[in-house]
Amino acid sequence: MAVKYVNEDQYEEIGMANIAILGYGTVGSGVYEVIRKNQAIVNKNAGEAVEIKHVLDLRDFPGDPVEEILTHDFNDILNDKDVSVVVEVMGGVEPAYTFVKGCLEAGKSVCTSNKALVAAKGPELIRIARQKGINFFFEASVGGGIPIIRVLNLCLTADDIEEISGILNGTTNYMMTKMADEGWEFEEALKTAQDLGYAERNPEADIDGWDACRKIAILTSLYTGKNTDYERVYTEGITKISARDIKYAKELGFKIKLIAESQKTDDGLVAMVAPIMLKRSHPLYNVDDVLNAVYVRGNVLGPAMFFGSGAGKLPTASAVVSDVIAAVKNKTNVRVDWDDKDLELCSVGSVKRSFFVRVSGSEEEKLDRIKELFGEVDIVKAPGVTGETGFVTGVMTEEEFEKGFKQLEGAITRIRVDNREDK
Amino acid sequence: MAVKYVNEDQYEEIGMANIAILGYGTVGSGVYEVIRKNQAIVNKNAGEAVEIKHVLDLRDFPGDPVEEILTHDFNDILNDKDVSVVVEVMGGVEPAYTFVKGCLEAGKSVCTSNKALVAAKGPELIRIARQKGINFFFEASVGGGIPIIRVLNLCLTADDIEEISGILNGTTNYMMTKMADEGWEFEEALKTAQDLGYAERNPEADIDGWDACRKIAILTSLYTGKNTDYERVYTEGITKISARDIKYAKELGFKIKLIAESQKTDDGLVAMVAPIMLKRSHPLYNVDDVLNAVYVRGNVLGPAMFFGSGAGKLPTASAVVSDVIAAVKNKTNVRVDWDDKDLELCSVGSVKRSFFVRVSGSEEEKLDRIKELFGEVDIVKAPGVTGETGFVTGVMTEEEFEKGFKQLEGAITRIRVDNREDK
Repeated sequence: MAVKYVNEDQYEEIGMANIAILGYGTVGSGVYEVIRKNQAIVNKNAGEAVEIKHVLDLRDFPGDPVEEILTHDFNDILNDKDVSVVVEVMGGVEPAYTFVKGCLEAGKSVCTSNKALVAAKGPELIRIARQKGINFFFEASVGGGIPIIRVLNLCLTADDIEEISGILNGTTNYMMTKMADEGWEFEEALKTAQDLGYAERNPEADIDGWDACRKIAILTSLYTGKNTDYERVYTEGITKISARDIKYAKELGFKIKLIAESQKTDDGLVAMVAPIMLKRSHPLYNVDDVLNAVYVRGNVLGPAMFFGSGAGKLPTASAVVSDVIAAVKNKTNVRVDWDDKDLELCSVGSVKRSFFVRVSGSEEEKLDRIKELFGEVDIVKAPGVTGETGFVTGVMTEEEFEKGFKQLEGAITRIRVDNREDK
Repeated sequence: MAVKYVNEDQYEEIGMANIAILGYGTVGSGVYEVIRKNQAIVNKNAGEAVEIKHVLDLRDFPGDPVEEILTHDFNDILNDKDVSVVVEVMGGVEPAYTFVKGCLEAGKSVCTSNKALVAAKGPELIRIARQKGINFFFEASVGGGIPIIRVLNLCLTADDIEEISGILNGTTNYMMTKMADEGWEFEEALKTAQDLGYAERNPEADIDGWDACRKIAILTSLYTGKNTDYERVYTEGITKISARDIKYAKELGFKIKLIAESQKTDDGLVAMVAPIMLKRSHPLYNVDDVLNAVYVRGNVLGPAMFFGSGAGKLPTASAVVSDVIAAVKNKTNVRVDWDDKDLELCSVGSVKRSFFVRVSGSEEEKLDRIKELFGEVDIVKAPGVTGETGFVTGVMTEEEFEKGFKQLEGAITRIRVDNREDK
């Protein structure tokens, strides 16, 4: 038992919750730091004194205060009956999956920031937690510090959610912002992001869109209640975006952002990740640098947006610790609807929008052919660009567009344009 | 008992929760509509079939489906042992307070959208709910459909919240947007807001800032855990803002918004409502029309923002129904920290910022005196405006500024400028 400060002359006896942290990397050390820094607030909100009893890492940390509670053996944690909540912040599917499953089966609640684990094994881990009457929480797996998982599970409960879209990857958003603001080419933006520690040395998960893809799959599973196989979500990264594309976007008053989106359409549910040109009135237009944002549209709520630090040690740790507090507070299972059953995803071919296209050759040479393939278009001129023609099509399905685009001789690139009127 | 659809071949037996709605006005009929429209989602998330058993209103609604369950007698609800959750959407302190207190004392959870009631009687009603082991929820009292109350109570629990500021009144935000976009004078904006049904015939609660004041008092109570007396929150409305002020703001690249803000400073907690000039990079700059937004800064999360429909029948009802779902799901008290004890508020005089000032007389005539009173300033010229001088001061405390402003001969107006660098 511990004591809790209530006010000047009152202390309450409260219980103590022992927790363990799997992984002492960026997020793990952040969790340690946040609990230490905000210990009184954490205890008050948890209703118990939250004590970090073990930290698991393969490495040693000589001189770090964590040394005293550091272990290299997962069994020290698994077999410690005093540990009721385990934080998993190692990343990757294995060995995280084996550890997390073991903890849940041993009756310990788990809180994780690991989107790869949640996207791959979410429904199974949620089911085990439910069977054991404990909790598997994963607030930090999407949107870093932005509360979105709990918002979907506990706040927007009166709505039929019709759409979730967002900027879910801070690294690529930083890169797109710099390319727009500084006129940088993709390679320069990537190198700077790596130098600043935003992008990994192997940046594929970010720039190829796989990180955002896992996150939109998690959100889609939560709002539909059915499992969304992230490998079936159409995913296109930002690697083909050039400084010249951005010149055109500026002429149009648009920004190019890596958008992860998921929406209920007349044909079914469509989920995708791709760079999209956004007009100035789009709610995600102003989300720059490493910020993340999630736009949600409910059938009665209408549009809402949540934005903040989508990554970074302390914001992510803030979300993990809010999970720890919820895990300590909730001694029984908090129901999360995410069935094992796979959600049917329909093809992106049915989504209607405009498309920006660049084709080699002058307007004079190409206009007739362009009109033949796409109907009326808006020609765009970018300053200092010659030898090619840029244009924006009217609204059509992706399928219709791709049919024309494949036949367009000298086509250089195409970028989707979000010009739906409801935004 | 009722049955719940689980999937194609499985139904589960679930309980039934009878609710009552006090008031069948805009929000009350919205609550009725949202539950009917999204009945399956509401039942699934509540874990029980949610049935509206009574609606209380003084009026009759001939031909409306509500007629069958309409009552004019509050005792029909109070004495109905089957009713476990009561929705209060009448507005105003009385008789809402008497009714709500009666329901809580009778062991019925209450969900309300009534900011006047919550600001005036929050701590007492929260205490009764805790003693009775039931709940008093008020998500819709601030920010309409934007989940902010539950976000503070359940999501941002790992942080020491350092600041909350927001655009919390849709009517005045609509007016300020129209004045900026259309060049309208205050009176024209107010008349249009009234014609569109945004503003009441007696618009003082909105335009004098009292609505926003109650809302920031509620948020401040929640994030500090102590009662914030809304009558002690410094409150200035938008009635003095003119089309000419907005011309100057545009020259500066600023927008004027009615901001409700509350922050921990070195001197203590400061809470206030006032029109403030925001620079383009301010997160609230782009929140236009009837939208609301809440900006929160936590000591580890950093900045986050939540935005959406701050008012309107269905968005507000969406928040009320999410409370109903939480009240049905949580059979015991969900702790809300909001003590009876009053929070010490410190004077706005200690807040540091810049100030925009208009003074009659030309720059030539006035500059020496202006510099004498305020030090170096930036002169602003608005197109077509003569016979006066506009300027922006450097950063100083309100107290220092007011001292100078009182001595400035021919002073016309002054508007606060938010130019803190962390935004």
